[in-house]
Amino acid sequence: MGHLDEEGHCHPKAWRRCGARCALGTLVTVAAAPCPRPGAVELSRRHPVASWLCAMLHCFGSYILADLLLGEPLIDYFSNNSSILLASAVWYLIFFCPLDLFYKCVCFLPVKLIFVAMKEVVRVRKIAVGIHHAHHHYHHGWFIMIATGWVKGSGVALLSNVEQLLRGVWKPETNEILHMSFPTKASLYGAILFTLQQTRWLPVSKASLIFIFTMFMVSCKVFLTATHSHSSPFDVLEAYVCPVLFGTGSGGDHPQDNHGAWPGGPPSGALATKSKEELSEGSRKKKTKKAD
Amino acid sequence: MGHLDEEGHCHPKAWRRCGARCALGTLVTVAAAPCPRPGAVELSRRHPVASWLCAMLHCFGSYILADLLLGEPLIDYFSNNSSILLASAVWYLIFFCPLDLFYKCVCFLPVKLIFVAMKEVVRVRKIAVGIHHAHHHYHHGWFIMIATGWVKGSGVALLSNVEQLLRGVWKPETNEILHMSFPTKASLYGAILFTLQQTRWLPVSKASLIFIFTMFMVSCKVFLTATHSHSSPFDVLEAYVCPVLFGTGSGGDHPQDNHGAWPGGPPSGALATKSKEELSEGSRKKKTKKAD
Amino acid sequence: MGHLDEEGHCHPKAWRRCGARCALGTLVTVAAAPCPRPGAVELSRRHPVASWLCAMLHCFGSYILADLLLGEPLIDYFSNNSSILLASAVWYLIFFCPLDLFYKCVCFLPVKLIFVAMKEVVRVRKIAVGIHHAHHHYHHGWFIMIATGWVKGSGVALLSNVEQLLRGVWKPETNEILHMSFPTKASLYGAILFTLQQTRWLPVSKASLIFIFTMFMVSCKVFLTATHSHSSPFDVLEAYVCPVLFGTGSGGDHPQDNHGAWPGGPPSGALATKSKEELSEGSRKKKTKKAD
Repeated sequence: MGHLDEEGHCHPKAWRRCGARCALGTLVTVAAAPCPRPGAVELSRRHPVASWLCAMLHCFGSYILADLLLGEPLIDYFSNNSSILLASAVWYLIFFCPLDLFYKCVCFLPVKLIFVAMKEVVRVRKIAVGIHHAHHHYHHGWFIMIATGWVKGSGVALLSNVEQLLRGVWKPETNEILHMSFPTKASLYGAILFTLQQTRWLPVSKASLIFIFTMFMVSCKVFLTATHSHSSPFDVLEAYVCPVLFGTGSGGDHPQDNHGAWPGGPPSGALATKSKEELSEGSRKKKTKKAD
Repeated sequence: MGHLDEEGHCHPKAWRRCGARCALGTLVTVAAAPCPRPGAVELSRRHPVASWLCAMLHCFGSYILADLLLGEPLIDYFSNNSSILLASAVWYLIFFCPLDLFYKCVCFLPVKLIFVAMKEVVRVRKIAVGIHHAHHHYHHGWFIMIATGWVKGSGVALLSNVEQLLRGVWKPETNEILHMSFPTKASLYGAILFTLQQTRWLPVSKASLIFIFTMFMVSCKVFLTATHSHSSPFDVLEAYVCPVLFGTGSGGDHPQDNHGAWPGGPPSGALATKSKEELSEGSRKKKTKKAD
Repeated sequence: MGHLDEEGHCHPKAWRRCGARCALGTLVTVAAAPCPRPGAVELSRRHPVASWLCAMLHCFGSYILADLLLGEPLIDYFSNNSSILLASAVWYLIFFCPLDLFYKCVCFLPVKLIFVAMKEVVRVRKIAVGIHHAHHHYHHGWFIMIATGWVKGSGVALLSNVEQLLRGVWKPETNEILHMSFPTKASLYGAILFTLQQTRWLPVSKASLIFIFTMFMVSCKVFLTATHSHSSPFDVLEAYVCPVLFGTGSGGDHPQDNHGAWPGGPPSGALATKSKEELSEGSRKKKTKKAD
């Protein structure tokens, strides 16, 4: 982070340069992305332009979304010709390499783990730089800093509906905000931490926070990838916090009156019945759907 | 409107301040919004982040859409930390207040009518300020002024498809432009009136126009809410104007050749038959759909 | 192109003026657009606002999309009141002219061919001006120049999903990028050519390139319209280039191992089988869909 001085000041130009320097990481990002993506090979054969655009979205979606939020040209990042050419070369190798050699190498577990780790390093740097950039524009805009950091960290995940539409797929019943994956959640929590650090509420130096958070992200993601697990290290924490804050865990089905904070008597019968009915109707619908 | 001098000049800074001052109205906006929204309670329990984002869209959708049209940062309004915190507090109270007390109070008819009235006051001010702001950027851009005023007045209604997608719901067969509600239509007509005033075609002072239009909006909306009616006071006007301008009323099924403005003989047979067939095919399709 | 000096320099103001001057071409654009659009008449009768917005998108979609990409106000072009009024007048005449006279005239083949030719002239100028404008902002942003030129040339086609949604239609399984029409493809190739010219890689003067490309576009489009053909003059070229570059033609079903560039032995059996299975599964699915 040589372009950030001790005080944490960062000029927009330095920010650009950092983006350009991080571009090597895009190699990793795009390389690791299409591994579990069914249909991607067919798409690349039949519609190379759409496939290339999807790959670019996977690589640079976070920049596009952050530019949209901050009112800058959406296409701004595409002025880094070298990054785009590098990403295009990786895309070409993954889909059109003879004997699929490149893809096989990338998906070989030890190699994949290295790439996954590098991707998390890039993600944490992106969050930190994004919050820095937002702080430069809005000195007291906490929500703007958190949003920019989150968007920079999550990248294409938050754009998943757009990316699917580009490929001719449409799944409106779900999106990344309804069902957050581990990287999206971690980006959100990371963005909150870095915002607290930036506004001096967290008495830690930026370098330390980057180091600690990178270590956490890399170890979690490598462990999750190695064990093919889809659980999240935040589940335990959320199981304690959500019932207190929101009446029920984010994945649970318990109605609100379960959190036991109101010992002054049973809740109003009519309301409780109504809200229970509402919830049970929701779950019944879901069961019917599954039965179909 | 202390920040607007007699000449109607308004500096961007004053505009911001006005936005911040109107923020108290967001309390009302968000409070009145979720009343008829089924599934909102379940969403808030299972996906608090999506529910919060929806609430923010309901409160500040008009700012986001206007910023998008005028090329400013989408997230600009989120720099008003106090507004966001206030709106978040209201959101939390509505969904997680013990015994649902807050929601019950808000939906108690007399209280609701007061909030609905306040919401219309805020709406008219938003239209006026939006047109002022657009006039500041584009002195002769009538269409831009109308569009900005409309968007500022209608708010999240024009974004309904995006808001639904965020909740995992997708109803592409309808949108606010195809089936305009009363507030959306009134915002459009109001935006046209305020634009005429701003460009000196309407010889009324801005203060008078704001007063008259606010009175009209408040009385209409309070009456409609009190009687649970979904009709619109513009229906009578449109029944006279639309057949003259567009051949048929906006909700009617009569083909074009009904408006009787062409007494010079029967219309060209082939064309009339074709257009009638076209129309009847459309309605037949709709009937088949309903039968399904 | 009087506003472009010999060196090809163009000031933003001149660019605006050129846009305004080209506005006469919008008459053509909007006139030719709704000819093959079923349901447009019904839409204009029942939802005049949605129909007008669709018409505006057809006329000025390219400006809106280019403004979005370059971070300028989306609504910027709507400050040209005369263009908007002209386009609105044409829209009104097409849908509400007595006896449908205007529509009949416009769709009379010789007249239509003239309009189609004029539309292509405007398209080529739009591509050239768009690339000029992008070059003014990003001197070495090749990708930005190509994207801006493509978007300016293709216009509403790239926005087709948004335009359909406005009309209450939703076809997510296809879009213009998956199935490019001839004008979209030609705009892409034209944007690449003009970018090469702008960055001095193509030793041709801009005027000559505009002349040659306009001639090509006009003759192709007039021929395609006159013969009601939907084939594309690029098909032959692509049939040679795509198998070399992407393993198979953009519309073909041949798996990757067909391109015969690897004479060193048969490809790895397991992989080939897997990829073939993948592809055949894809086509099987499609057949099942058709059978439904």
